[in-house]
Amino acid sequence: MDTLPTPGLTAVIGGLDLVGIAVFALTGALLAAKLRQTFVTMAFFALVTGVGGGSVRDLLIGAPVFWVRDPWVAPVCMGVALLAWFTPSRWWDKPVLEWADAAGLGAYAVLGTAKALAYGVTPVPAVLMGVITGCVGGIIRDVLAGRPSILMRPELYVTAAALAAVVCAGGAALGLPNAVVWPIAALAGFGLRGAAIWWRLGLPVYNFQQKDR
Amino acid sequence: MDTLPTPGLTAVIGGLDLVGIAVFALTGALLAAKLRQTFVTMAFFALVTGVGGGSVRDLLIGAPVFWVRDPWVAPVCMGVALLAWFTPSRWWDKPVLEWADAAGLGAYAVLGTAKALAYGVTPVPAVLMGVITGCVGGIIRDVLAGRPSILMRPELYVTAAALAAVVCAGGAALGLPNAVVWPIAALAGFGLRGAAIWWRLGLPVYNFQQKDR
Amino acid sequence: MDTLPTPGLTAVIGGLDLVGIAVFALTGALLAAKLRQTFVTMAFFALVTGVGGGSVRDLLIGAPVFWVRDPWVAPVCMGVALLAWFTPSRWWDKPVLEWADAAGLGAYAVLGTAKALAYGVTPVPAVLMGVITGCVGGIIRDVLAGRPSILMRPELYVTAAALAAVVCAGGAALGLPNAVVWPIAALAGFGLRGAAIWWRLGLPVYNFQQKDR
Repeated sequence: MDTLPTPGLTAVIGGLDLVGIAVFALTGALLAAKLRQTFVTMAFFALVTGVGGGSVRDLLIGAPVFWVRDPWVAPVCMGVALLAWFTPSRWWDKPVLEWADAAGLGAYAVLGTAKALAYGVTPVPAVLMGVITGCVGGIIRDVLAGRPSILMRPELYVTAAALAAVVCAGGAALGLPNAVVWPIAALAGFGLRGAAIWWRLGLPVYNFQQKDR
Repeated sequence: MDTLPTPGLTAVIGGLDLVGIAVFALTGALLAAKLRQTFVTMAFFALVTGVGGGSVRDLLIGAPVFWVRDPWVAPVCMGVALLAWFTPSRWWDKPVLEWADAAGLGAYAVLGTAKALAYGVTPVPAVLMGVITGCVGGIIRDVLAGRPSILMRPELYVTAAALAAVVCAGGAALGLPNAVVWPIAALAGFGLRGAAIWWRLGLPVYNFQQKDR
Repeated sequence: MDTLPTPGLTAVIGGLDLVGIAVFALTGALLAAKLRQTFVTMAFFALVTGVGGGSVRDLLIGAPVFWVRDPWVAPVCMGVALLAWFTPSRWWDKPVLEWADAAGLGAYAVLGTAKALAYGVTPVPAVLMGVITGCVGGIIRDVLAGRPSILMRPELYVTAAALAAVVCAGGAALGLPNAVVWPIAALAGFGLRGAAIWWRLGLPVYNFQQKDR
């Protein structure tokens, strides 16, 4: 580990983390509500969805797992579960939640990439850390719920995280200041995911017939 | 890591670990038997169920993974798989196994919480480490077997682990001696899980109709 | 960690790693193609299948995760995904791929065991690390794809990895030189897996009726 993050960078990273965690935790809790689960399951889903991606990233880059060392992240996830339990689920309309999730996705992908770079990871694995941070919580949530994960749907989801991560790592490689690169990268990811929601964009799928003639 | 565990505490933790591991490993091996799997799969299920929760806990709190550094835990899991392979599965009656699993659940939840606290984790994440230690092995077992996990059933299971973990962390916060708190906490978890088995207690599930009127 | 690997050993381990990674990544990418997924999903499957087993091994033995610290492994997985995307899947005939996978399985199981031993892990857990290195990438791939994992099929697959790992750990315990033990162990695993492919060998499954009379 050549370049350990400075305290200032760590603080910014911590702040960005909370942006994504609460929204992701809410998507987990609401899936549990939809599946008519108990409060305890709801809390477990909120936690796993909120911190799953960041936990896998921290383990892979050899950082202390952020939420285990932070006294606030886990209580926030539990609070989100309480909120989801005591409010009618129609408050959390699908469009509202989808757009909030898109914002969390962009922020989380940038955060994950930046943290990996700060720990001395080279660009390609660092981009993958951004994608993992943005998507793995949702993938674990879907696997636990026994439904096809976001990974298996042709919607642009993982791709939006990849775009944000690539812009972030590219900016860092060009030596541009983080204060410029990070917002642009997060907006790029949010914008692509937003376009996918708005115009129902998807990626082309592997085409057997054309290729296997 | 402010407070590394003392050698004495480590020994106690190691002992408690073995209580849960063999029973959990047996539930894994018997599920593989029920699914008519081979011995190798049975051994894999015994291992994953026995050490899965503790492994995730150790990774998250930054401790060396207990069974990789211990020459006995893995052989015990393999021995349990041999036992399950060579004995008729009716020896392992559902009620007997369920009660043994309940005891393991209580012990494991306390152990996980205590170990996390010993590694300087704050109370809320420490409680979650207790729940993870008690439940994650079974969840991985169920996901690998492709069946709905204990997480998704309304039965009080995760909740019993949560009770044991909360009592353990609460006692530690009040400064009570471990020798008093740990048995009480483990008994509380075992008692709640036992009550759930005996009276078929479950938690209420999220109620759409009532809340979404 | 008593015996840290020497630079020489690390280089050999790195080389063996690449043998398995590209083949495993290809099996992941081709499964995604068969499931008619997008390029991004294909790349994710290639990565997870290629590095999944080695990542879990490195986390469990406390080593830095190999592909996060290596600038080449992740690009190789992305390259394999590109190759799978732009070529007709009939190029990657099932028999060819199965035999290449068998070779990767043997090499990976030996590598995983040797790396664990080099990090001071005792023989039984070290053998399990070999099995994990060989099989866990494929298991994660299958769970993500929502299909029964290699673990649940009676075919000799996990068993072949176990044979290679046992031969490797046994040779080390007898003090034989690695240059002799490693090729023999890898060939033993490859041979058993090859025999299973050729003669469709399987292990016996747990027999209820016979044992439960």
